[in-house]
Amino acid sequence: MSEDLFLEGLFPKLGPFPPSVVVPPGDDCAAIRIAPGRLLLLAVDQVIAGRHYHDRGPVAATPEQIGRKLAARNLSDVAAMGGRPLFGLVSLAFAPDHDEAWLTRFFDGAIGLGRQFGLHIIGGDLGRTLQGAVASLAILGEVDDTRVCLRSTARPGDLLMSTGVFGDSLASGHHLGFTPRCREGSWLAEHGWARAMIDVSDGLLLDASRLCTASGVGLVLDPTQVPRRTPTTSVDEALTGGEDYELLFATPPDQADRLDRDWPFPDVPLSRLGRFQAGPPRVLGSDGAPLVTRRPPGYDHFR
Amino acid sequence: MSEDLFLEGLFPKLGPFPPSVVVPPGDDCAAIRIAPGRLLLLAVDQVIAGRHYHDRGPVAATPEQIGRKLAARNLSDVAAMGGRPLFGLVSLAFAPDHDEAWLTRFFDGAIGLGRQFGLHIIGGDLGRTLQGAVASLAILGEVDDTRVCLRSTARPGDLLMSTGVFGDSLASGHHLGFTPRCREGSWLAEHGWARAMIDVSDGLLLDASRLCTASGVGLVLDPTQVPRRTPTTSVDEALTGGEDYELLFATPPDQADRLDRDWPFPDVPLSRLGRFQAGPPRVLGSDGAPLVTRRPPGYDHFR
Repeated sequence: MSEDLFLEGLFPKLGPFPPSVVVPPGDDCAAIRIAPGRLLLLAVDQVIAGRHYHDRGPVAATPEQIGRKLAARNLSDVAAMGGRPLFGLVSLAFAPDHDEAWLTRFFDGAIGLGRQFGLHIIGGDLGRTLQGAVASLAILGEVDDTRVCLRSTARPGDLLMSTGVFGDSLASGHHLGFTPRCREGSWLAEHGWARAMIDVSDGLLLDASRLCTASGVGLVLDPTQVPRRTPTTSVDEALTGGEDYELLFATPPDQADRLDRDWPFPDVPLSRLGRFQAGPPRVLGSDGAPLVTRRPPGYDHFR
Repeated sequence: MSEDLFLEGLFPKLGPFPPSVVVPPGDDCAAIRIAPGRLLLLAVDQVIAGRHYHDRGPVAATPEQIGRKLAARNLSDVAAMGGRPLFGLVSLAFAPDHDEAWLTRFFDGAIGLGRQFGLHIIGGDLGRTLQGAVASLAILGEVDDTRVCLRSTARPGDLLMSTGVFGDSLASGHHLGFTPRCREGSWLAEHGWARAMIDVSDGLLLDASRLCTASGVGLVLDPTQVPRRTPTTSVDEALTGGEDYELLFATPPDQADRLDRDWPFPDVPLSRLGRFQAGPPRVLGSDGAPLVTRRPPGYDHFR
């Protein structure tokens, strides 16, 4: 069972939705029209002990890092829609050995990062598990309805572009310390550079293929163009490692040069990774063969 | 450490909030003004294996019951504000032995109950734990700003009233099968009967004392007036058992008779449990002595 397949079966059961629902489940956020021209973005992501971080041993995450990562993952989802973060609801199922100091440090991590991006934690729930911690954050954001960036709107001929570098997120600690691309995502949306967008949480290849599936287009991707986190990061790792939390987006080809010129974030590399094309929704390498890696593509939380 | 005390320390760190925040954290829901006269209600509650239900043994909850309970707890929070449910985001950290069938049944339970009350699940997140399940639902509701029911607006002289019966929720299975008081809560709000309101999740006495603290008033409560779930339910159990998910509310004394007369839910008992009074925010018995029970008052998830 894969998460994507399970969700494909689940989504039809959730509807029909009221007409206010502009983007139903299946994108990085759902979107609801709450006023003329104004969409409310909604998403939820969790951080699970032993899955999304080590909770013991030499590379155990600190409580601040866990709270920070929880906020960062959700901020990244709002960024991928081109939105601005507004409010968050945190539920924390803490472990039996977590004390008040642990909880305080966890919330300090989440609140602190949220504050940097305008996210206010406005509610929560606390409870103790029998073993292991699970934290969840539901995020609300907003975006103008003419600026929202979906997964489903890439067109043949568009370039696939990315922010940042890829691979070795867990090995490098990037997965605990990354900066969500809120400023970049909202800048791209505001200027209309991103025709379609997604954030890379489950691996570049898997998330790129989600763009293809949602848009009904194919993609030719040049693995040699994927910027790697370190000199020792392999191409395969960059394509499938996951937890990069960078943005992947489709840009009309005649606008790419101007985007390169106007890009106002000098510390965040902008890369052209490939080109969308008409055809079945799959990712091909430069040689025209489907990109298959030795490891399962991307990070599937159902594994 | 108690949950209430921890939250008291946490809340000041969450602000300051933007002016759209009409009800900050500390009530059953937070409330945000999203249009003139219209409030968005926000809350989150979780259901934790081994804490909120038995996940093995003869009284193990079914996956449907767990999903249903998750939705019901959150619907109860919206009911306590006098609101109408709108959307929910579900995050599920499932246990290693949960398969696709388990997940499907869990969502069927949550979706099915939600549908009865106009709640649409519009997003979610799935992941596997190393042991035990944790499910969380963030709920959005709406209410007119002149109708919203807070905890903080009870006045001396108001009657304390309740829906339903109390005690032995866990022993009777009520905690898995209860009907959230959405219709009752929204009817009370619409007609202005409930000057202040809260739902009883952590025990009647503890939640009544929260009304007192938030409103800055005392309360004289007559334990003999508390309707008990079964003939063998003790007064003490009814006062402190928790997981009743009934509504407690303050009604101006001159309106109580008319409320009794107009009450359109014949299968839901309406009871007068006591009277608010000026004075320190504590709950006294009919004899004027503070109500203290042998067990810790109510259910504290920090135990």
